[in-house]
Amino acid sequence: MRHHVLAALRDHDGYLSGQALSRQLGISRVAVWKHVRALMALGYVVKVSPRGYHLESSPDLLLPTEFPGWESRIHHVAVADSTMHLARSLARAGADEGTLVIAEQQSGGRGRLQRSWLSLPGGIYMTLVTRPAAAPTQAPRINLLVAVAVSDAIERLYGIPARVKWPNDVLINGRKVCGILAEMEAESDAVRFVNVGIGLNANSHVADVQQGAVSLLELLGRPVDRARLVREVVEGVLSRLPRLTDMSIIEEWRSRTVTLGREVSVVAAGAPVAGVAVDIGASGALLVRAKDGQVHEVVAGDCVQAEY
Amino acid sequence: MRHHVLAALRDHDGYLSGQALSRQLGISRVAVWKHVRALMALGYVVKVSPRGYHLESSPDLLLPTEFPGWESRIHHVAVADSTMHLARSLARAGADEGTLVIAEQQSGGRGRLQRSWLSLPGGIYMTLVTRPAAAPTQAPRINLLVAVAVSDAIERLYGIPARVKWPNDVLINGRKVCGILAEMEAESDAVRFVNVGIGLNANSHVADVQQGAVSLLELLGRPVDRARLVREVVEGVLSRLPRLTDMSIIEEWRSRTVTLGREVSVVAAGAPVAGVAVDIGASGALLVRAKDGQVHEVVAGDCVQAEY
Repeated sequence: MRHHVLAALRDHDGYLSGQALSRQLGISRVAVWKHVRALMALGYVVKVSPRGYHLESSPDLLLPTEFPGWESRIHHVAVADSTMHLARSLARAGADEGTLVIAEQQSGGRGRLQRSWLSLPGGIYMTLVTRPAAAPTQAPRINLLVAVAVSDAIERLYGIPARVKWPNDVLINGRKVCGILAEMEAESDAVRFVNVGIGLNANSHVADVQQGAVSLLELLGRPVDRARLVREVVEGVLSRLPRLTDMSIIEEWRSRTVTLGREVSVVAAGAPVAGVAVDIGASGALLVRAKDGQVHEVVAGDCVQAEY
Repeated sequence: MRHHVLAALRDHDGYLSGQALSRQLGISRVAVWKHVRALMALGYVVKVSPRGYHLESSPDLLLPTEFPGWESRIHHVAVADSTMHLARSLARAGADEGTLVIAEQQSGGRGRLQRSWLSLPGGIYMTLVTRPAAAPTQAPRINLLVAVAVSDAIERLYGIPARVKWPNDVLINGRKVCGILAEMEAESDAVRFVNVGIGLNANSHVADVQQGAVSLLELLGRPVDRARLVREVVEGVLSRLPRLTDMSIIEEWRSRTVTLGREVSVVAAGAPVAGVAVDIGASGALLVRAKDGQVHEVVAGDCVQAEY
């Protein structure tokens, strides 16, 4: 009901009387006042006068109330050690696909290859629970799928070209704007869940802190609507999931990449591989043609490339 | 120390005096007697006389004492709901590769595709924790690897031809002797663990209970040494693990299969696929050439074939 009260206040430009709200939502005026106070406690600034209620501003927090229609699937926390941990517990307990854990801050954010992930204020730190109907061998493609969904959302919302770098970074003008981490639990024939962690440099100040990184705030010169970006990214991921089992995700990744055709050096578990990135395979492995003409299949690692 | 006492008794044919045991192991004669009593409580029959101790028989249980050198990695339970559950807890808590959960009986054994697995007395029900240095896309090949290791162990120990059927059954004369289930937890770039569940019809009476199944006892007309078979299978799996990242496991599977070259019908998540099984791909998918000449890649499902 709190969400309905907020929605009604948002839809109304001036003051909305307690009586009108009470009638519209079918609850008492005392109940209306109770929900308004709850919203104020969350940081919503609501002017209260004899004419009624007026929503003056919303807090810059990714509260469930910011996602009309999705409230029940969102788990918002002020500080998490890592959103991956809470999402894992929820997924193991049977949480539906689409369950979303969002943290304003992370005390122990993690990136790929066991690295720590710096979670500066203003960024977006979230983990989405997915349950794709895919085989365990196909599911890792979700790394590419999410990179594609993020770059697509950024391009459509802000009109700036965002590109993907193997395996799953999103870059703008060669600087990293988003990191992705996937975590899978599977059996021989079926995936139980794949949780997708997304760290997005939205309204954070990162350029001076992290080499090679940039935020949307720094690129656009103004803060972005984080809730809208979250919604766009999550919808982009969920709508692409049915395509995880065919090759169209690979094709979409190819059309958005800055990696293919470039000189790269990949530091993997084994020896480093240097050469030209010629393509990616069906499972998302990078195919690198070395100087001697031999093509190496690199399944995981860190990709360094000279130009973007 | 209990294991050392057992080993000493096993190595000795007649009676071994308490004094000799005490000297050999560097413990008091009272301590020797304490360990002998503990062995007797587990079901070992030890004759005690003024001449000393004589091991008359061992219980038909897969106790850690049956695995000299491996005692500390074995978790033996009389009844488990499923060995997968206990192994999962151990693996999540950081258990080393090689940790082995063995149950004499299972109250809720599971097979592939969420099926229940009938755990009759005398069978082998175990889950092995592995931590292969493989990418998440490569790790599912472990299903093929384990099938190969089991069929190889059976052939070497008993001299009967055991073959593999796609994806991971082991058959003798077309009848199923072993079922395999793998469970993986992984991140974008690395596998955390793959637990391998193995159900082996060893000394169980299955032929009259399960259509298309057979036990080693029924085939050989005598019970097998279950501990020796467990050791052979586990060593076969662990020694092959480094090859998970290359193609030699696929080649070994090809050399042992009854599926390739045969008319098959695979019931998968989507539509059933019928045709000739022509090969398996790098990730273990079955390639089926349909009547119209088109080759379908089947990543998971149930394979029915007319001949073996």
